[in-house]
Amino acid sequence: MAEMQHYFIEKTASINDQIILDGEIAHRIVKVRRSQVSDEIELVDAEHNAYVAVIMALKGNEVLVKVVREAVLNPELPVSSTIVVGTSKGDKNEFIIQKATEMGVQHIIFFNADYSISRIKSDKIDKKLSRYQKIAQQAAEQSRRENIPTVRLIDKLSELSFTDYDTRLIAYEEAAKQHEHSALREALTALRPSQRIIMVFGPEGGISPLEIGFLESKQFKAAALGNRILRVETAPLYFLSALSYQLEMS
Amino acid sequence: MAEMQHYFIEKTASINDQIILDGEIAHRIVKVRRSQVSDEIELVDAEHNAYVAVIMALKGNEVLVKVVREAVLNPELPVSSTIVVGTSKGDKNEFIIQKATEMGVQHIIFFNADYSISRIKSDKIDKKLSRYQKIAQQAAEQSRRENIPTVRLIDKLSELSFTDYDTRLIAYEEAAKQHEHSALREALTALRPSQRIIMVFGPEGGISPLEIGFLESKQFKAAALGNRILRVETAPLYFLSALSYQLEMS
Repeated sequence: MAEMQHYFIEKTASINDQIILDGEIAHRIVKVRRSQVSDEIELVDAEHNAYVAVIMALKGNEVLVKVVREAVLNPELPVSSTIVVGTSKGDKNEFIIQKATEMGVQHIIFFNADYSISRIKSDKIDKKLSRYQKIAQQAAEQSRRENIPTVRLIDKLSELSFTDYDTRLIAYEEAAKQHEHSALREALTALRPSQRIIMVFGPEGGISPLEIGFLESKQFKAAALGNRILRVETAPLYFLSALSYQLEMS
Repeated sequence: MAEMQHYFIEKTASINDQIILDGEIAHRIVKVRRSQVSDEIELVDAEHNAYVAVIMALKGNEVLVKVVREAVLNPELPVSSTIVVGTSKGDKNEFIIQKATEMGVQHIIFFNADYSISRIKSDKIDKKLSRYQKIAQQAAEQSRRENIPTVRLIDKLSELSFTDYDTRLIAYEEAAKQHEHSALREALTALRPSQRIIMVFGPEGGISPLEIGFLESKQFKAAALGNRILRVETAPLYFLSALSYQLEMS
C-alpha cells in the first residue's frame, strides 16, 4: 500500500511531456525514496494540476520522467482555513507546520503572544521563514496536497486584518469548563464551501486576557476542543481534524 | 491561563489529608513546574478520584500538600477507544503515545506489521514497555486525565481477540479513493456511551493485503480519515479528534 510520491515542480506540465528533474526533488526520488525506472510518481505543476509521471531514466543527480496521465486528487479542504498560533520553541512551530499541512491547512501565522516565552526576533524572520516554508512544502508533497500552505511570522495580533474571515474562533480550554461545548460544532456546521475560517491558539502559557479581549472585539468566539487539556502543538490538529470530519466525511 | 498541574498518586486521598509527595512527582512540582507554597495542584488518587491540593511546604526533595476539595473534571471520552498501530521507529511510537493520550485514548497496542521496517524485538519488550508506559503517564498528567492509557507491544494482530469491541475500523487511505467517505462518520454516530471502539493503523509502509483480509474476517471495516495522506503518527490523532468532536462537542 506504499503511496505514490508527490512532488511540486515549478513549470507547467502536459501529458506526454518528458521532464528532467534535478536538485532537491531528484535527491528525494533517488536517495530518499529509492525509486526505480518504471516507478510512477505524481507531479503537481505550477498551475496546481496533478499528473502521474513514470520514471524513464535515473542518471547521477537527474531523473527523467514522462507525464502519462492526469492524477485524480481532491486533497484540499472545501474551505480555506487559517491557524494563528502563539509562537513556542522552534521545534514546536515546525511540528505544527508539518502536521497542520498534512491535515489540510491553507495559512499558518505565528505571533509573539503575551505569554510566549520563546519569541520571534525580527532579524531572524527571513531565515526562519524560508526554513518554515520548506517544511510546509515537503509536508504538502508527502500528503499529496495541491497547494502549499503559506507561513507568516508577525509580532502582534493587531497586525492582522480579520475582515476576510467568515468564521473566527479562539481555542480556549477554559471554554470547556464553562460548558461551551457546542461552539466549535456550531461554527463548523454553519460553514459553506469556499468560506474562510480562522482559529487563534495561544502559546504554551495560554492566551492572555488582553488578547482574548482584543479578539472578542473582532467578533472572535471562544471554543473548546474536547474535554482534555491539549498541548500547544496538538490543539491545531484537533481543529483541523474536526474541520475535515465535519466537511469531508459525510 | 496556565493550567493547574495534575499528578497521579498511588494511595487513596480524602479531603483534609496531608500528604507528603516525593521522588519523581516532587521533582516535577519543584524543579520542572517551579511551584510555590500556596499554589494549588491536582491529585488523582489510586481510586481515580481527582482532588485539588494546596502546597503547604517545600523541603529538599519533599512537598507537603493538603487536600482541600474534590476537583471537577470530566476528561475521559464517553467511550473506550483502542488504537492498534503497526510499529515504526521508536520516536514515532513515543509521539503517538504522548499525543493519543492527550486526545483521550484508553488503550494503545503496537504490533509488528507485515510492512513494519522497524520491528519490536521480543528481548526488548520489557524495557520499551516501561518507557512507553511512563510517557503515557506523563501525558495523562499533562492533559489532566483520570486514567492512564495502557500500552501493549505484540508480535502479530492474530494475538488479539476482537470480541469485546462494538465497532471495528481499519484506517485505510485507499478508502478515500473508493469514496468510502462515510464509513468513519457512520461508525462514530452509531456509538453509544461506554461502548468500545478499536481502530487499526498500518506502519509507514501501509497495511498489507493479508492484514486487511484478516481484519475483514474479524468484521473490521475500512474507513478513510479525510482526503489527504496522513503520516503514521498523524492518523490516530485524526481518529481521536473526530471521536471527541462527534461525542463530546455537541
